Amino acid sequence: MFTSESNLFLVFLSFSCDKFSVNSSSQTAYDIAKFWGHRHIAGLLGRAADGCERILPGADLHPHENYFSRETLDRQSGKRTDKVWLEAKQSDSETVYLLFSNLSPMVRTQQEDGSEAQGDMKLCRFRYEEVKDLLLKPSTVTIFLGIEKTKNPSSSSSSEKTESLSEPPVWFAINTDEDAAALLERCREKNCSFPRSPNRDLLKLSEEEAGVVAQARSVLAWHSRYSFCPTCGGATKMEEGGYKRSCLNSECRSLQGVHNTCYPRVDPVVIMLVIHPDGNQCLLGRKKVFPVGMFSCLAGFVEPGETLEEAVRRETEEESGVKVGPVQYVSCQPWPMPSNLMIGCLAVAVSTDIKVDENEIEEARWFPRQQVIDSLFRGDRSVFVIPPRQTIAHQLIRHWICMNSNL
Amino acid sequence: MFTSESNLFLVFLSFSCDKFSVNSSSQTAYDIAKFWGHRHIAGLLGRAADGCERILPGADLHPHENYFSRETLDRQSGKRTDKVWLEAKQSDSETVYLLFSNLSPMVRTQQEDGSEAQGDMKLCRFRYEEVKDLLLKPSTVTIFLGIEKTKNPSSSSSSEKTESLSEPPVWFAINTDEDAAALLERCREKNCSFPRSPNRDLLKLSEEEAGVVAQARSVLAWHSRYSFCPTCGGATKMEEGGYKRSCLNSECRSLQGVHNTCYPRVDPVVIMLVIHPDGNQCLLGRKKVFPVGMFSCLAGFVEPGETLEEAVRRETEEESGVKVGPVQYVSCQPWPMPSNLMIGCLAVAVSTDIKVDENEIEEARWFPRQQVIDSLFRGDRSVFVIPPRQTIAHQLIRHWICMNSNL
Ligand SMILES: [Zn+2]
Ligand SMILES: [Zn+2]
Repeated sequence: MFTSESNLFLVFLSFSCDKFSVNSSSQTAYDIAKFWGHRHIAGLLGRAADGCERILPGADLHPHENYFSRETLDRQSGKRTDKVWLEAKQSDSETVYLLFSNLSPMVRTQQEDGSEAQGDMKLCRFRYEEVKDLLLKPSTVTIFLGIEKTKNPSSSSSSEKTESLSEPPVWFAINTDEDAAALLERCREKNCSFPRSPNRDLLKLSEEEAGVVAQARSVLAWHSRYSFCPTCGGATKMEEGGYKRSCLNSECRSLQGVHNTCYPRVDPVVIMLVIHPDGNQCLLGRKKVFPVGMFSCLAGFVEPGETLEEAVRRETEEESGVKVGPVQYVSCQPWPMPSNLMIGCLAVAVSTDIKVDENEIEEARWFPRQQVIDSLFRGDRSVFVIPPRQTIAHQLIRHWICMNSNL
Repeated sequence: MFTSESNLFLVFLSFSCDKFSVNSSSQTAYDIAKFWGHRHIAGLLGRAADGCERILPGADLHPHENYFSRETLDRQSGKRTDKVWLEAKQSDSETVYLLFSNLSPMVRTQQEDGSEAQGDMKLCRFRYEEVKDLLLKPSTVTIFLGIEKTKNPSSSSSSEKTESLSEPPVWFAINTDEDAAALLERCREKNCSFPRSPNRDLLKLSEEEAGVVAQARSVLAWHSRYSFCPTCGGATKMEEGGYKRSCLNSECRSLQGVHNTCYPRVDPVVIMLVIHPDGNQCLLGRKKVFPVGMFSCLAGFVEPGETLEEAVRRETEEESGVKVGPVQYVSCQPWPMPSNLMIGCLAVAVSTDIKVDENEIEEARWFPRQQVIDSLFRGDRSVFVIPPRQTIAHQLIRHWICMNSNL
C-alpha cells in the first residue's frame, strides 16, 4: 500500500493545476489516481476477491454496472408454470403492479420544473384493489416480473419461520389500451404521466427501477408485436406468466417440439469503441437524428450465423470503412427499445481511412484522447458531446479513457 | 526467449513420463509447454501484435475460433437492396447455389463406411442451370449469402482491372419443399444425402463450409417459421435478399417505423463453465437426452432485460443450485439450431452445494481437474465423456484446463 500511495502523491505533484490535462502518456491525474484507488480497494476486499482473481486472472473484480442492468427482483422462473401460486399472488394485497400504456410506464416526477436528473422520475406502484378491473379485460396483458430480493437474508434458524410467513412482495406489470387520461386518475400521487419518448425519458429512473422497466417493457413489447403465430398466422394465447405464447391452431408446426416463435425475442447488438492503431484516438460517428454536436460509438445488430467479433468488424467496416483487428468484450446493457441487448466492446483498428455509409451515419471522425476527456469532464470546453452516462456508449468511452495501458 | 525455452526444458524434466498427469499446481507438462509456446509465437508476431496488446491490454492475440464461426463469404449487406445486381448474379454461371430440403443442406460423404471425422462431409454446390426451375417455384426460398472472400487481394494497380472483370463467385442458398429423392438425382456426385440430425451431422463439415451453413440455415429457418406477420397475422413477402420480411397488409403497425418483426431472429444463449471456489474443480451437468456418460457445461437463453452476467448467474442457480460470483466472457459460437448465438463464459462459484432442477438436467457434479484432463486427452481412461471439439462447451473446458493461473 505504501508504494501505491506515494506513487499517487508523486503523480499529483507532477501535474499542473488542471486535473483534466493529459501527460505524455495521455493520462490525466484523475486516471492515475483512479487506477491506484482501485488497487487499494481491491486489496481491501481480502481473501474472497483474491481467490476469484487467482481462478480467473483478468476477471474484473469491479464489474461495470450499466443503467437498465440492476436486478432488483428475483425472476423465479420456476413459478411461471405454477398457475395456482400466480393467481394467489395476483390478488395478494402486498403485490406491486406497474401500469403501462402504449408500452410506457406510469411515472411521477419529483420536481415540477421538469428537471432531468436521474432519479427524479419514479414508477407509480399500484395494489390489486386499484387495478383488478383492468386485469379482467381481455385486451390487458399481465406479466409476472418476480419477487423482491431480500436485502438482508437472515441466517439464524430461529427467525426462518417468521420470514417464510411474510414472503417479500411479488411484482407484476400490466399493459392496457384503456384511455391514458383515465388511467392517470387512478393514481393517488401528483405529477403523474406516461412518458412519450422512452429512449430519453426512461433514463431518469433510479438504477433499481430502470432494471425492472428493462424487463417489463421488453416482455410487454413482445406481446404487443407477437400476438399472432408467425408460423401459421393464427391467434395465440399467453402462458407461463407472460414468458410464452402458444398457437391456438392445434395443427400448427410451432406446437411440435420447441420453437423460438413461442418465446420472447432478445436482439443482440454490438456496440464498439474503435481505437486508432496509435492508441490515442477513437472512432465516433453521428446519425442525423442525434442532437446537435453529439457523436457516439458505432453499433449494429448481430446477424444470423455471426460471432460478436465478426459483427463488430462487419458493422465498423460497413458504417465507416475502417477495418478492425482484435476485439475485446467489456460489458453489456439491456436496452428495452424494445428488446435489445447491447454488447459493448473495445476494438483496435488496422486501417484508418474513413468512408461513411450515408444511409447509416452522417459523419464519422477520429477524436484525440484530449478532446474525449474534455467531453467527459468539462462539457463547456468540449468540441463535441457524448451520449449521457446511462448509455453503454458513454461507459465504453469512459472505460477507454480510464484504462491506463502504460501504467 | 532463452528464459522461456530453458523454463520449458526444466518443466519437462520435472515431470514423470506421463505427460497428462498434473503437478502440485494441477498443471500438466502439456499446459506449461503450450503456455510457453504461445509466448514464443506472440513474440514472433512482432510490432503489429505488440501494438494491439499495448492498446488493449488483455486482448487475446490468438482468439478462439469456434466451429460454425469462420466467415468465408463477405456478406455485402449493401447489395441486398440492389435488386438489379442480385438478379444478374442469380443467373451468373459462376454463382454457387446450396440446396436445402427441410432446412438440411445436400451434402456428399467422402467415405462410404460412414466415418464421422470432421471434413468428411462436403456441401453439394449447384450452378444456375441446375436449379433455375426451382427458383421459379413460389414455395422456394432463395437467400443471398455473400461474395467469396478473395484470399490474395492484389495490391498492384496493374492487375486491378483484370480482377474487377472476374469478380469472385456469389453464393445463394435455396430451401425447397420438392421431393428429397428427386432433388438428390440432380447432383452429379455420388453418396449425396440430406442429413437427418443437424445437431450431430452438421459437425462433419470443414470449418469453411460450417460457417456458410451457420448463416444459411439460420436465415432459412427464420423464413420457414416466420412467414406470417406476428403483429396482424397477415401474409408477408421476402425482401432484401432474404434479410427482411414485410407485411402485405398496408394497415399493419409493423410497417410504421422499424420493427424487429421484419428481421431475422438471433437468440443469445449463455453457456458457462463454473469453477469451484478452490479453483480445481468444475461444474458439469447432463441432460437425459445426452449420450451415456456425457457431461457438459450448463447453458440457457438470455431473458429480456437481462445482462449476460446475470443470465449466467440465474441459469446456474436455477439448474444446479450453485451461486456464481465473477463471470468472464471467453468466446462465442453461432449454433444454427435454428439460430442461437452461444456466448461462452467462465464463472467462479461462491457456493458449492448442488441441487438439480430435474426439469432441466438429470445430474450435475463437480469434476476434479485430473478427471477433466483425462476426458480431454485420454478417452479410454476417463470416468465421463465431454462433448466433441466442435462445441463451445468443449472449447470452454479446454480453455480452463489450458489456463495456467499459477504460471
Ligand atoms: Zn401457428
Ligand atoms: Zn402485419
